[in-house]
Amino acid sequence: MQKIEGGVTAVEGFTASGMFGGIKKNGHPDMALIFSETPCTVAAVFTKNRFPAAPLLLDKRHLRKRQGQAVIANSGNANAFTGRRGLSDAEAMARTTAEALGIARHSVFVASTGVIGEFLPIEKVKASIPCLVSHLARDGGRTAAEAIMTTDTFPKEIGLIGKVGRSEIKIGGMAKGSGMIHPNMATMLAFLTTDVAIHPVLLQEGLRVVTEQTFNCITVDGETSTNDMVLCLANGSRGGMISEKGAAYHQFLSLLHTACLSLAKMIVQDGEGATKMITIQVTGAKDDHSAYRIAKMIACSNLVKTAFFGQDANWGRIVAAIGNAGAPVDPTKLDLSFVNPNEGADRHGRVILLRHGMHQGEKAETGVTALLKKREIGLMVHLCSGKGKATVWTSDLSLDYVKINAAYRT
Amino acid sequence: MQKIEGGVTAVEGFTASGMFGGIKKNGHPDMALIFSETPCTVAAVFTKNRFPAAPLLLDKRHLRKRQGQAVIANSGNANAFTGRRGLSDAEAMARTTAEALGIARHSVFVASTGVIGEFLPIEKVKASIPCLVSHLARDGGRTAAEAIMTTDTFPKEIGLIGKVGRSEIKIGGMAKGSGMIHPNMATMLAFLTTDVAIHPVLLQEGLRVVTEQTFNCITVDGETSTNDMVLCLANGSRGGMISEKGAAYHQFLSLLHTACLSLAKMIVQDGEGATKMITIQVTGAKDDHSAYRIAKMIACSNLVKTAFFGQDANWGRIVAAIGNAGAPVDPTKLDLSFVNPNEGADRHGRVILLRHGMHQGEKAETGVTALLKKREIGLMVHLCSGKGKATVWTSDLSLDYVKINAAYRT
Repeated sequence: MQKIEGGVTAVEGFTASGMFGGIKKNGHPDMALIFSETPCTVAAVFTKNRFPAAPLLLDKRHLRKRQGQAVIANSGNANAFTGRRGLSDAEAMARTTAEALGIARHSVFVASTGVIGEFLPIEKVKASIPCLVSHLARDGGRTAAEAIMTTDTFPKEIGLIGKVGRSEIKIGGMAKGSGMIHPNMATMLAFLTTDVAIHPVLLQEGLRVVTEQTFNCITVDGETSTNDMVLCLANGSRGGMISEKGAAYHQFLSLLHTACLSLAKMIVQDGEGATKMITIQVTGAKDDHSAYRIAKMIACSNLVKTAFFGQDANWGRIVAAIGNAGAPVDPTKLDLSFVNPNEGADRHGRVILLRHGMHQGEKAETGVTALLKKREIGLMVHLCSGKGKATVWTSDLSLDYVKINAAYRT
Repeated sequence: MQKIEGGVTAVEGFTASGMFGGIKKNGHPDMALIFSETPCTVAAVFTKNRFPAAPLLLDKRHLRKRQGQAVIANSGNANAFTGRRGLSDAEAMARTTAEALGIARHSVFVASTGVIGEFLPIEKVKASIPCLVSHLARDGGRTAAEAIMTTDTFPKEIGLIGKVGRSEIKIGGMAKGSGMIHPNMATMLAFLTTDVAIHPVLLQEGLRVVTEQTFNCITVDGETSTNDMVLCLANGSRGGMISEKGAAYHQFLSLLHTACLSLAKMIVQDGEGATKMITIQVTGAKDDHSAYRIAKMIACSNLVKTAFFGQDANWGRIVAAIGNAGAPVDPTKLDLSFVNPNEGADRHGRVILLRHGMHQGEKAETGVTALLKKREIGLMVHLCSGKGKATVWTSDLSLDYVKINAAYRT
């Protein structure tokens, strides 16, 4: 497996474009289009929020055919909680795109991200679409990735090439964060392209599994947005058709996992106001679900997150968070250690702060404090009560998070 | 019902004291004692955190006899996650207090609050106790309330007098916040004194019910501390014994509810870094539990809380939080309005922002923006799908919250 450039257009057969369509007040790019020259198999995973935004309602309908050829996305306005008019605006986006591209309406998927509860300036959106179509380019991935950014500070792209069966296949991807990021599907927008040939049911199942292990294991602020989605277009131009859960399927899943995890981690790195990237690994739990609950509880604790921001080895807050997860834990069996994730967890890079619930003294604390000064921090929790494990990625809670979110609409 | 001065010593038969015993680095008072001249009936509710602190383990044992006469408390150190030594330190606190007061050991309840994971300076604590005993005073409530403060900016006291059956009874109380405040018992320390005569089982049940409706309905930062407890001492000097759930019991519960709610609201008002006091009232939910989940989800949303800090009528975030609660809701039936809680919810003080899911226009938004500039804000959510209701109180998420918690241990 190797990284390649190009984002969603890293894969042959895909073009993309991005532009300013008049939605954002600051004049930044706010419209993106991804297009496949040939019809694709489509899979998607949507938010679990009870108020899915209008584009998601439309996409769920389009997804029934498991076929697609284009994604039209805008930033700056979520088209969420906009009722019937919102749905008809999303339909207009799909229809205008389909007409401009000369493809079927149900082949177009729509995504929106931004402020909730305001109507889309649909005339501006419609007027932009022909321009987006005329600018579609084989190297357009970056401009498309830029056009879906909201409070993101950098575009998030991935490209991978790797062996699936006897063929080399490619996966391209782009995503946006960076507020309302929380495990529970989907917490952001992510679009993946690939040239793999795969049965639609397997693509859907694979995307769901991978999403659970990647995008749903990150949290910035514990919020699940109304607009979150992960969507994958597979044009099937490479390799034999994957039609069963054999070796090729698992090779593809492994590639997809790497692509999604890379994007997910970029979202955490770019979490609103984030100064730290924290990997929380829980092992030895009763089962995987308990491990996940504990990891998530630590990752969502404002007190833990502010302590990370303050570079304070305040393990009492971590322990309190573990105790709040509602999962069975024995304090006398609790190991807590910190690592530099880039150096691995061997005896050089790892500092054990608690062993069997006992604090390991000032030297350990000094070691942890040194690790906390790094931008990337690994926290390992071992519970000695089973084989359950989970990993969650999160950012710290900084002054800038509050500044960004206190001022967002104004 | 009338308010009276005196906090926990508002009730005849109770004395209290507070002092600096050498635990806090800043030299502020950190030891408090409450004493009843006669043995009391005791009830208590403890944290649901899986790692209850050492004092709570001891108190649970002492509570079995349902009798008590003193509370010894310290701030600056939580004596939590301190293993066997922590438990023996808590026992030493109880024993030393019992000896100095000449009462039985199991009549003494111990409470600690402060940093987790450090051992108590038990010699200093023991040395302070005789001094606390010698300073016990009928007007000592305030000094005791001051001595349990951690990041609190003001002491929290309440005194009430009201009719129960044919007698006038009194309730006194004190509490401390102000971080790790979240519904789920008990999220802080609260001590109540009363002269009511009541059967121990009814006192325990009454305290639990009232705690659910008051202390468990506040949240500052979504954290449940390892040390939280609410404890009530009833010396039984007034009125006939309440031994059934009749009129007198409910009169007493009403008084207790008022006392606990007053303290709970003071804790929110004094939430770490809080600039706003927000009352979230959910009505028309499928059932009370759904209403509570929704109110809590709004109250715990960092995005909602930062919007309140920014005085931004960002209702999209509120709607997203409602959708995340996992409770059934219909967006087309959702009413959202803001009130000034001090002016009531009549047509003058209330601004309806969403009616049946439809935004009510710019005038409504302007009205809400004006309300958001006040220190106290009321948010009313009506779901039109049942009779379930719940009220939760919370604070905003400010820059100072992050500053306080990034620097807490250092």
